[in-house]
Amino acid sequence: MRDVHVLDVTLRDGSHSMQHSYTEAQVRSVARGLNKAGIEYFEVSHGDGLGGSSLQYGLSAVDELKLIEAAVDECSVSKVAVLLIPGIGVKGDLQNAVSVGAKMARVATHVTEADVAAQHINLSRELGLKTAGFLMMAHMADTKVIIEQAKLFESYGAEIVYVTDSAGYLLPHEVTERIRALKEHVSCEIGFHAHNNLSLAMANTLAAIEAGATYIDGSLRALGAGSGNTQTEAIIAVLDRLNIATGVHLYDIIDVANDVMAPMMLRPQEISGSSLMMGYAGVYSSFLLHTEKAAKQFGVDERDILVELGRRKTVGGQEDMIYEVAQSIRATK
Amino acid sequence: MRDVHVLDVTLRDGSHSMQHSYTEAQVRSVARGLNKAGIEYFEVSHGDGLGGSSLQYGLSAVDELKLIEAAVDECSVSKVAVLLIPGIGVKGDLQNAVSVGAKMARVATHVTEADVAAQHINLSRELGLKTAGFLMMAHMADTKVIIEQAKLFESYGAEIVYVTDSAGYLLPHEVTERIRALKEHVSCEIGFHAHNNLSLAMANTLAAIEAGATYIDGSLRALGAGSGNTQTEAIIAVLDRLNIATGVHLYDIIDVANDVMAPMMLRPQEISGSSLMMGYAGVYSSFLLHTEKAAKQFGVDERDILVELGRRKTVGGQEDMIYEVAQSIRATK
Repeated sequence: MRDVHVLDVTLRDGSHSMQHSYTEAQVRSVARGLNKAGIEYFEVSHGDGLGGSSLQYGLSAVDELKLIEAAVDECSVSKVAVLLIPGIGVKGDLQNAVSVGAKMARVATHVTEADVAAQHINLSRELGLKTAGFLMMAHMADTKVIIEQAKLFESYGAEIVYVTDSAGYLLPHEVTERIRALKEHVSCEIGFHAHNNLSLAMANTLAAIEAGATYIDGSLRALGAGSGNTQTEAIIAVLDRLNIATGVHLYDIIDVANDVMAPMMLRPQEISGSSLMMGYAGVYSSFLLHTEKAAKQFGVDERDILVELGRRKTVGGQEDMIYEVAQSIRATK
Repeated sequence: MRDVHVLDVTLRDGSHSMQHSYTEAQVRSVARGLNKAGIEYFEVSHGDGLGGSSLQYGLSAVDELKLIEAAVDECSVSKVAVLLIPGIGVKGDLQNAVSVGAKMARVATHVTEADVAAQHINLSRELGLKTAGFLMMAHMADTKVIIEQAKLFESYGAEIVYVTDSAGYLLPHEVTERIRALKEHVSCEIGFHAHNNLSLAMANTLAAIEAGATYIDGSLRALGAGSGNTQTEAIIAVLDRLNIATGVHLYDIIDVANDVMAPMMLRPQEISGSSLMMGYAGVYSSFLLHTEKAAKQFGVDERDILVELGRRKTVGGQEDMIYEVAQSIRATK
């Protein structure tokens, strides 16, 4: 019996922090540990989802289908989930993932663009997968928009809709607001995915659960993009203390975090100044490189650029706006 | 105008993680950065407070009075606080600290032993210091006891009473309970000191502020005992987003965290399996070494020992109980 389903993203979101360099042996050992601990679903894909391996998003060292297949091979209890961002991944990628044993798909779009996911969610259901819609950068939309987008996901067949705090920007009361609104207006289950840029991942996770979320993402040792995610083993410990059943063994999840994952990590997952600023400004980590360049070029503080980009609700693909913002800050000096 | 006073403990609690090896140059550069950011008080002492340098608690590389004096010398805005645990430090230590410029004393006792602090708090007030009482291991007492102990502190002259979650054990609702009870029953200001063992430092800090705490501890890059403290620069960012005035400059506090403190750290502050278990069980980090030994000696899981020690509310000085507990676990196997 699980009151809350803790989905582990170490082998997907954590792939960002591993520079997409997971080996098959590494994936097998993490999968084995998660399975032993009794994790229900864990995600395996390129950090940017199926098909993400590319010059633009970073090349994977090993074909993700091989990694998914290896993970599936290690599991007797756990099931493997995949992430798909329409536009990066295509329907064929989903079919391939299913052919090697994936049992769940999370189809992710920007918080205002759920409509691009219709076909993928449909297909996922047809393939018999547990199917979720994943609303990224959820801080960029108010509850009215989030409800409307979640309803679209639901109409396509999603069984879970996630509020995804991609930039680690949301404050606990903003999480509560969003999850509560969804609980009131959609009938599928609600999930929450946190990032720790403001050191709020656990606070936001608890706010989400209290407001009715039943699917929660975590990552071993917090491994993930930016400042990482909510730390899986800490979630298990805290929910255990709160008498909220997760079905996961505390000692076993600590073992895979410490004995398996920690020694593989390229560096510990910290809240650095730049990731803190991402969370403060509400912009995605892919902006960082351009922002640094633009700051140097125009002789302005890169943090001022980030704050202004956040204010303008800039999204991925609008990288040229970074230089425009830098120039305008320079001009007003 | 400060709604909340963020007191930085990098140069005191952080000293644990630095193996008490701070040099004068390091202390000067951190002090300079904190002063520039507009921090009101920051603490400088051995990790276990004034007089802590010893074989038992770890020898300081540099005499703490020299470090306090150096820190004071760098400050035009910030004032230097010291921690004193009666029994480890003595009244003479306090007088010495004042003679080199300390302006605040925090007198710390186990949560049930405020009475041992009477003379030190009296003296601190006589010396003209801002004076606080610091209730350590606050999870080991219920609100009734905490109120009674806080009233003792207040009666000796404390201007602030801190709830100190030394083991990083408290859950947000337990923090709320304790702070709220104090707000109702004592008239001095209330402070809160978090540890991040369960990844709850920020959640608990916000719960404390919401319940009425006006003094909050933080540490640059979270540097502190166990899994460290609430990350100072993250607190500033979050309170800024919540429109709670701290009087601290965000960019400047990020600068000292990243450019000054991070490069000095012996290792990043993480939530490892053992520190997570400390928080889960509610025992202090000084037990770890003995627990490991006892686990090996009796062939039991050290985590079972920690959980049982927590259940028995074991405190520092009762290290021999660790072996007794290990033996009893072994016997019931």
